[in-house]
Amino acid sequence: MKTLRVELDARSYPIFIGQGLMGNAELVKPYVKGKQVLIVTNTTVAPLYLKACEKAFADFDVKSVVLPDGEQYKTLETLNLVFDELIGQRFDRSCTLIALGGGVIGDMTGFAAASFQRGVNFIQMPTTLLSQVDSSVGGKTGVNHPLGKNMIGAFHQPECVVIDTQTLSTLDERQLSSGLAEVIKYGLIQDSEFFEWLEVNIEKLMLREPEALAYAIERSCGDKAQIVAKDEKEAGLRALFNLGHTFGHAIEAGMGYGNWLHGEGVSAGTMQAVFLSSLLGDIDDGDFGRIKNIFERAHLPVYPPNVSEMDNKTFLAIMAGDKKAQAGTIRLVLLKSIGEAYVTGDYPQELLEKTLTEWRA
Amino acid sequence: MKTLRVELDARSYPIFIGQGLMGNAELVKPYVKGKQVLIVTNTTVAPLYLKACEKAFADFDVKSVVLPDGEQYKTLETLNLVFDELIGQRFDRSCTLIALGGGVIGDMTGFAAASFQRGVNFIQMPTTLLSQVDSSVGGKTGVNHPLGKNMIGAFHQPECVVIDTQTLSTLDERQLSSGLAEVIKYGLIQDSEFFEWLEVNIEKLMLREPEALAYAIERSCGDKAQIVAKDEKEAGLRALFNLGHTFGHAIEAGMGYGNWLHGEGVSAGTMQAVFLSSLLGDIDDGDFGRIKNIFERAHLPVYPPNVSEMDNKTFLAIMAGDKKAQAGTIRLVLLKSIGEAYVTGDYPQELLEKTLTEWRA
Repeated sequence: MKTLRVELDARSYPIFIGQGLMGNAELVKPYVKGKQVLIVTNTTVAPLYLKACEKAFADFDVKSVVLPDGEQYKTLETLNLVFDELIGQRFDRSCTLIALGGGVIGDMTGFAAASFQRGVNFIQMPTTLLSQVDSSVGGKTGVNHPLGKNMIGAFHQPECVVIDTQTLSTLDERQLSSGLAEVIKYGLIQDSEFFEWLEVNIEKLMLREPEALAYAIERSCGDKAQIVAKDEKEAGLRALFNLGHTFGHAIEAGMGYGNWLHGEGVSAGTMQAVFLSSLLGDIDDGDFGRIKNIFERAHLPVYPPNVSEMDNKTFLAIMAGDKKAQAGTIRLVLLKSIGEAYVTGDYPQELLEKTLTEWRA
Repeated sequence: MKTLRVELDARSYPIFIGQGLMGNAELVKPYVKGKQVLIVTNTTVAPLYLKACEKAFADFDVKSVVLPDGEQYKTLETLNLVFDELIGQRFDRSCTLIALGGGVIGDMTGFAAASFQRGVNFIQMPTTLLSQVDSSVGGKTGVNHPLGKNMIGAFHQPECVVIDTQTLSTLDERQLSSGLAEVIKYGLIQDSEFFEWLEVNIEKLMLREPEALAYAIERSCGDKAQIVAKDEKEAGLRALFNLGHTFGHAIEAGMGYGNWLHGEGVSAGTMQAVFLSSLLGDIDDGDFGRIKNIFERAHLPVYPPNVSEMDNKTFLAIMAGDKKAQAGTIRLVLLKSIGEAYVTGDYPQELLEKTLTEWRA
């Protein structure tokens, strides 16, 4: 087992990474404050891991709630099912929530914990690669609004993150690839050495070789923890994690939540950001090819959907509504080079439009 | 104008108290960060003060949303109307929300600000006595759940609180009395000198004499600011503010939100807490009479509703579900004497039941 730490003063917490951590009662016990534990999971994960997870909390008064699976259920309405359970079962302020599932479960459970009785504890137990390397670390929680992703939420840090890499054995191919999009992102924004490692090892990751996966998760979490520690509430630096996300969120929203997986949107969206970076003269043809190549080897889409519902006007409108926008200009994360990203609202608008027009399948 | 300060390090903020502060643009300007301002108010307050309030923010891009009036609308559903407006009008992370109204508007606007894009700024402009002396100060925000009050929310401090005492001239009698319940509470829990002042001046407050009102508001806010500074997130001391609230919330919930005003529930609930304190031998007949007397002079109910829907069993069940409960025992705020309250779960259960049975009209 590897242990990393997210350093946030009084809100610091460990990330445990290893095979078969799920049923480990001794590991999680110190992170449960009161007696009441509510496991929040979904219809896909429950049959696979709910029993093992319950075992880890057998010393407590443990209950569970099983939500429908999918980004389209990441809403205030679904969140209310968690509140109904908490309040109906008389959970008090000393309770602990467990997020057992992917990013949607983690985000919703975290926001339920942030807002139930104005804040209770929670533990992240991510079961998808995407949530293991990204959303379970850093305390961003929330739900979607019909007009925009993650519009309603809170910064609320977990007590600990338990990453059982064995759960990846049951993950479907598309979900695995989706997670790799975020892994590749860390290389692109700040870790060119990791990007080079990925260029050598991406097939091993696709074949789920345990050692390769463990390393990629550890390195991704380490990269993320470092930036979160410097900028918990996204005043600056942390915005770099949004590489490809303003484009990607527009794709997810425009195509209807759940049709494009998050990592698929991020992959195509990152390619759009890289295309714009190349128009600005920062990314040359060689590096452009390397980036496109690694997404393709991870079986990820490199082009946004070429459909009439996503014409340039609609695309821009959704992007402008995305929360990264600041009073008018659409702020984007772009690349200076592989391993060096920056945030800017200062680029020629016509180059953004050119990107939308030309970078299509 | 008087200025108090809530001392919370980086989250410290001023409370301004005075006549006619509502339209004062210079006063509020320094507390607006970006360009976008959304005033959240309700159907009762909008015709009276929305125009004046908009004037104060005329230098900004100001919009407003008018919600239905009443505790029964303090729900996730109504909150969503605020999100619809914010997202539909493309408000960004640098926007400022203005809570223009009573406690319900303050709590909902505060929670909308806490959770929109994981947190934006807001300003409290309370227009009822109750919200001026209590809910607008301290950063408690939230909405109700059908099974319990304020079950869903956040601690989120405002940028400033603007108390225009002139707004009390339009407040109806019942609302004025409701606010006095919270004023009296400060005397009871920690400020016997203030309680004695209230015994002399309660009729002046009922007659809305501006100087008396201004003094009562200032003293109440001062008392509250002091305790909030010591215990922002209610780890201990702050729970004293809940004197009468566990009983009172049960009355409010049991009778259907909006039928009993918050202060009415607090008044009757405080009398229940005082009755239990007298059974425990801490409050003698003389002080018991003084407390009952002052609530009556403020035209507040001193008995809980004597209806079959609020029999002891139901009363206890709702109280046990109230968020002040900790794993089983119902924790209550009781009085050692006038000016000295304490929190306890350690009292004979039969005395609580005796209180419910005997302290009825």
